[in-house]
Amino acid sequence: MVEISALTYDGTNFTFQEIEGVEGLHALPKDVQTTWINIEGLENKNLLKAVADLYELHPLILDDLKEVSSQPKSVFYDEMIFVVLRMLSTSGVDEEITSEHISIVLGKNIVITFQEGKEGDVFDEIRERLPKVKSKHAKNSAAYICYHLLHAIIDNYSDIIEKTGERIEELEELILENPTKSAIVQLHELRNDLLQVRKAIVPLRDILFKLSNDDDEIISKEVQVYYKDLYNHAVHQVEQIEASRELAMGLQDLYLSSASTRTNEVMKVLTVITAIFIPLTFIAGVYGMNFKYMPELESPYGYPLVLLFMLLIALGMAIFYKIKKWF
Amino acid sequence: MVEISALTYDGTNFTFQEIEGVEGLHALPKDVQTTWINIEGLENKNLLKAVADLYELHPLILDDLKEVSSQPKSVFYDEMIFVVLRMLSTSGVDEEITSEHISIVLGKNIVITFQEGKEGDVFDEIRERLPKVKSKHAKNSAAYICYHLLHAIIDNYSDIIEKTGERIEELEELILENPTKSAIVQLHELRNDLLQVRKAIVPLRDILFKLSNDDDEIISKEVQVYYKDLYNHAVHQVEQIEASRELAMGLQDLYLSSASTRTNEVMKVLTVITAIFIPLTFIAGVYGMNFKYMPELESPYGYPLVLLFMLLIALGMAIFYKIKKWF
Amino acid sequence: MVEISALTYDGTNFTFQEIEGVEGLHALPKDVQTTWINIEGLENKNLLKAVADLYELHPLILDDLKEVSSQPKSVFYDEMIFVVLRMLSTSGVDEEITSEHISIVLGKNIVITFQEGKEGDVFDEIRERLPKVKSKHAKNSAAYICYHLLHAIIDNYSDIIEKTGERIEELEELILENPTKSAIVQLHELRNDLLQVRKAIVPLRDILFKLSNDDDEIISKEVQVYYKDLYNHAVHQVEQIEASRELAMGLQDLYLSSASTRTNEVMKVLTVITAIFIPLTFIAGVYGMNFKYMPELESPYGYPLVLLFMLLIALGMAIFYKIKKWF
Amino acid sequence: MVEISALTYDGTNFTFQEIEGVEGLHALPKDVQTTWINIEGLENKNLLKAVADLYELHPLILDDLKEVSSQPKSVFYDEMIFVVLRMLSTSGVDEEITSEHISIVLGKNIVITFQEGKEGDVFDEIRERLPKVKSKHAKNSAAYICYHLLHAIIDNYSDIIEKTGERIEELEELILENPTKSAIVQLHELRNDLLQVRKAIVPLRDILFKLSNDDDEIISKEVQVYYKDLYNHAVHQVEQIEASRELAMGLQDLYLSSASTRTNEVMKVLTVITAIFIPLTFIAGVYGMNFKYMPELESPYGYPLVLLFMLLIALGMAIFYKIKKWF
Amino acid sequence: MVEISALTYDGTNFTFQEIEGVEGLHALPKDVQTTWINIEGLENKNLLKAVADLYELHPLILDDLKEVSSQPKSVFYDEMIFVVLRMLSTSGVDEEITSEHISIVLGKNIVITFQEGKEGDVFDEIRERLPKVKSKHAKNSAAYICYHLLHAIIDNYSDIIEKTGERIEELEELILENPTKSAIVQLHELRNDLLQVRKAIVPLRDILFKLSNDDDEIISKEVQVYYKDLYNHAVHQVEQIEASRELAMGLQDLYLSSASTRTNEVMKVLTVITAIFIPLTFIAGVYGMNFKYMPELESPYGYPLVLLFMLLIALGMAIFYKIKKWF
Repeated sequence: MVEISALTYDGTNFTFQEIEGVEGLHALPKDVQTTWINIEGLENKNLLKAVADLYELHPLILDDLKEVSSQPKSVFYDEMIFVVLRMLSTSGVDEEITSEHISIVLGKNIVITFQEGKEGDVFDEIRERLPKVKSKHAKNSAAYICYHLLHAIIDNYSDIIEKTGERIEELEELILENPTKSAIVQLHELRNDLLQVRKAIVPLRDILFKLSNDDDEIISKEVQVYYKDLYNHAVHQVEQIEASRELAMGLQDLYLSSASTRTNEVMKVLTVITAIFIPLTFIAGVYGMNFKYMPELESPYGYPLVLLFMLLIALGMAIFYKIKKWF
Repeated sequence: MVEISALTYDGTNFTFQEIEGVEGLHALPKDVQTTWINIEGLENKNLLKAVADLYELHPLILDDLKEVSSQPKSVFYDEMIFVVLRMLSTSGVDEEITSEHISIVLGKNIVITFQEGKEGDVFDEIRERLPKVKSKHAKNSAAYICYHLLHAIIDNYSDIIEKTGERIEELEELILENPTKSAIVQLHELRNDLLQVRKAIVPLRDILFKLSNDDDEIISKEVQVYYKDLYNHAVHQVEQIEASRELAMGLQDLYLSSASTRTNEVMKVLTVITAIFIPLTFIAGVYGMNFKYMPELESPYGYPLVLLFMLLIALGMAIFYKIKKWF
Repeated sequence: MVEISALTYDGTNFTFQEIEGVEGLHALPKDVQTTWINIEGLENKNLLKAVADLYELHPLILDDLKEVSSQPKSVFYDEMIFVVLRMLSTSGVDEEITSEHISIVLGKNIVITFQEGKEGDVFDEIRERLPKVKSKHAKNSAAYICYHLLHAIIDNYSDIIEKTGERIEELEELILENPTKSAIVQLHELRNDLLQVRKAIVPLRDILFKLSNDDDEIISKEVQVYYKDLYNHAVHQVEQIEASRELAMGLQDLYLSSASTRTNEVMKVLTVITAIFIPLTFIAGVYGMNFKYMPELESPYGYPLVLLFMLLIALGMAIFYKIKKWF
Repeated sequence: MVEISALTYDGTNFTFQEIEGVEGLHALPKDVQTTWINIEGLENKNLLKAVADLYELHPLILDDLKEVSSQPKSVFYDEMIFVVLRMLSTSGVDEEITSEHISIVLGKNIVITFQEGKEGDVFDEIRERLPKVKSKHAKNSAAYICYHLLHAIIDNYSDIIEKTGERIEELEELILENPTKSAIVQLHELRNDLLQVRKAIVPLRDILFKLSNDDDEIISKEVQVYYKDLYNHAVHQVEQIEASRELAMGLQDLYLSSASTRTNEVMKVLTVITAIFIPLTFIAGVYGMNFKYMPELESPYGYPLVLLFMLLIALGMAIFYKIKKWF
Repeated sequence: MVEISALTYDGTNFTFQEIEGVEGLHALPKDVQTTWINIEGLENKNLLKAVADLYELHPLILDDLKEVSSQPKSVFYDEMIFVVLRMLSTSGVDEEITSEHISIVLGKNIVITFQEGKEGDVFDEIRERLPKVKSKHAKNSAAYICYHLLHAIIDNYSDIIEKTGERIEELEELILENPTKSAIVQLHELRNDLLQVRKAIVPLRDILFKLSNDDDEIISKEVQVYYKDLYNHAVHQVEQIEASRELAMGLQDLYLSSASTRTNEVMKVLTVITAIFIPLTFIAGVYGMNFKYMPELESPYGYPLVLLFMLLIALGMAIFYKIKKWF
């Protein structure tokens, strides 16, 4: 199901409307100051073709829209900027990270957004907030609307980064307390998730750098300040991700160190027990031999003396390992 | 066996023909808009020399064509661009990656491709697709034909990258379930394969960067947009390869952590069994001694009391290790 | 509790005053050469709004002030520079590192500082030092006051870096002497702390680079020399942090090497004891068998000969392991 | 022994001559188009001084020639380029890599090469090839002769890189089949060798980059194409070395993983054997005790029942470890 | 104790004199071509202040001179360049590396050096060499004197780098032959030393880069060639240090691999011994049981048959482990 909606600003008011098919787009007023068209669901290739024709999108943009696996990037065409981003969301009890593509076409007074629509409309909230913004830029400029869209995506990343931060802290406690195989698996999943988040944020940062430094006419100087602010956010997020990755590496090292220490401790216990009892067992074995002529066996003090001797050996061994600080 | 074919465009139609030797090349119409000559098989050095003479290729190009092991690169000569690429393909049951060189000479209205020909003609499909392209650039420009050739190579890389992605997932499962020596070997092969793919893609990315930013006349501004798109693809592929390499490193760490955890668990089992039975065996040994005067042996309660004592020791040990969370 | 204070310089004297609310700020003399306003406590959002209106701060500055988690950065607006920094402090017995944000707005003849105020006023000392500075720049330029503020922050980092240096040395000794689980945990905490300090200093270095190279009119050429000096300090601190991180990695390797060596030694002890006594116990077991026809048992020399034989085996084993340098 | 030779080109022919001392150099014709002087053996410091005076070399060049340990570099003086390179060669059965310095002074129509001469004249072959080169650049330009010299050095690196490639493959097989201490040592030597080769090639690449991009008059545009080709070769070699280093790191990981897996397997065997026999030995020990009142001992079914019981325990243990997939 | 000395060049001769206090500096002839003032010992802060006043040093230079822990850096003031360097020296039997600061102020015809003076005057030798230098630059230019000072420091680094190279080779042998805890500690110290040397050389390289590329008038074009030569030296030293660090990392890996191999070998010995004797001991235990009805015990062939059976088991085990290549 493809859903189309449009938000137009005529200089005084924002008008929101649901639109049916390409005809609805044709019927939109042409003389408004800014238009934002949102298309959810990309499975209708013909519709995409019609939209591309209507707004004179470059054939390569159309190719990218049709291709579901297209990667995050920004391309500057003559009259428009084409941006592909990745939207992350966690779902389910185990908070698996899923990824969705969002494509944005930014023209001088038009923004067109294309969502896969798997996770519902992520821009819902913006539609309500936009009319309330007091800044005068907001209402005149497509680039400012686009700024709000990118802001929503960045905020969404922040949530996910925060969640991974919490997972790192939980894992740290788990590894310090009782490192099990489950900890390794969780750590491994964490590292893979961090990699996935990084793969989404790093291109976004680079895109924002290009957008905030381009002297195209599409983004005016006043609005570019806002893009620089977004860029700073993205830089910070990348730093956070890198720090998280280092923390995760630190947990890996912590795990390995702990494991080798525990192995060592288990080994010491084994060695101490073996070292104490094996000689004693040997002695007991000697006096369990059935030789006819074993004078000690006849002596009434033999038994207590042997027990005493065994005790001394055991004590000696224990003191020896105590000195070696083995337990 | 060297096979030569030509595809010419006279402003209205594409004409494809198989060509016999250099004479056939001489006989090609000179007044067409664009010509694409494809040469499969590089073992006939004389033919290469003749082709180089005919199209006035730089002596260094000829050297590179003769040398089978020439590396991926792009060289800008006055009137032509020379590109060497590596084509990867997987073959056999174990999906071993093999590599083949493709050299492309791009002039203002001519493209010449040289293939080793081991894996058959990889450009077959393009010959059918080209006449169907509606864009007007396509038919006028050698650079646009070259774009299609490069696109085919990039797509081919995508397939291989995807396959390695699947191999990583399979390995992850294998390591988590039952890590064996086979997993190590597979992981090692995976890492080597990733290195090989990277060695092919990174130079291609750099070549595409140069091609899409050069202001040579050979690639017109309209066509350069397509090269930028290819460049973006290549950038993305390099990122995917890097991510795969990190995933592979993560699997390595996962393997080592799992191995150390398993060693630890085996050790604990060994230690617990030893710690429980060795003292008991010692006690049994003591009462197996043949001393004449061992009062306990005479007592009717000696045997059950010793058994009870042994049971208590065993229980004590078991509780002790249970508390230490060893099993 | 929000506390506001102002330091004004009228060309001859510095005047310090506590200020009550925004009205007090309105009442400040406008014709002084430089004014420094310090605001401690950011919880009163209305006050922040009023201050922003009074000094015509950019809406994005106000957003950042309201948002507690804003990251270190510097933004150049037309008439002012906005800097956000992180202030570190250690507290408690275990010297945990806590972090606080400080925002600085630097205009041509005004500096406004916003502190969270958790750790008290960190700029106390500067207020006393400023009137004593003899340099003529000091009294004329807001940028020079800002230099002193940044200097105080940098000095504070130096203290923390020095403390981590001491911790590294202590840990090194601990690991070399008696590596325990506590050492791993301490090392892990150290690495996390270093990461946190680095996250604060690296952005500061980049900010200082921008400040000392910008040819804005806000920071005059004479004062920029002082910012370059600060930049050099920050570069050095980053290098120190990086070196500390490498030292910490070295400690990690040291720990792992030591652990594997110790495991090896424990293993050798276990093996030597086992290897010596297990064969002897077996021999004793053989002569403990109850077969009717065991000729050795009858012989009067059986017992001493067996004991001798056992001694020889034990000696042989001991010599063998001595040659293998196992103990 | 210092050996001097000269190759001069008078516009039509190459003339080769052995030269005795500096006088011979003075006697060389001045009006030829290009001269290449080769000096083997650097131990005669006076001769070097005389040569430096004759060709007006910069004092720093003379210093570098006298100093044997001078590092690879290129220095651009007003009228000449001074290049120091490292020549690698493998010798002996264990193919140890040895290194020799070659210094090249390149003027407008003169090339002077200084070799240590330990490994014989490495440029022998070039002297024969040069007169056969058909390109017109060859005969007019000192830079083109220098190109051939550098080409010879690059080719020599290729051989060595290829050999290390073979060593990696052999080691891989060795480690996979039967990893021994010898494998570790070989791997360690390989890594050190790769480091040494890298230390020679990386500076050469940087030197070639400078030579092929400098717009000095010494290397003409036509010849610079050849230097760019060499640069591409060097870039490729550095990539190969880096890939080899990664492969070597992979082998290191392969070794460690294999080692930990093998340790684990040995541990399992030990644990299984211990776990099966220690309980049985204990039971045997119990019935070996000499208590007077042990009713089981009197029963005629005692012995077979105990044996059966032991068998059941052994089977139980074996099944337990079989389920745990320990063998 | 502060010691001051001056070396002046009046166009024909160098004059060296010891100087008492600031008055002596005032008394120095002003009309000489170049003056080099050397100050050893920085504890007299008043003297430093007086010198700074006399030569009009920037207040920040004075701050840096007073602060002992100032870091390596170069600052370009209007009329002078200020350089801080670190001088390394090894002392004692264990060749511990100690570090000392040297500050150099380079003006158009004056060089002022400030040494901590702990290790004596490191520039002694230069004072003797300078008058012998034949180059005409030497006598006219303060920058050329400064070049000689920097050269002395660079040479001093070379010695230390060479020593670490020797330590690496010794450690390599030690680890290959008999890896002990001492080897780990030595390796750890080596790595820390390499880090310290690197911390001194890397800033020096960057300083030399700046000095040799600055188009200040203080360093003339003719002298800059010499600074470029120093820069090349420093680049090479940094490369050597990096290579040494890689070698040290290689030794770390070598140690860990060896340790895991040795652990494995010890484990195999333990397992083989246990696996052979534990079953035998069990059998002996069985026939040591005191059951009344054990038919084997009565048989005259029981004993030899059991011994034979034991022998067969031992042989079987031994062959089994031989096949598994465990010893």
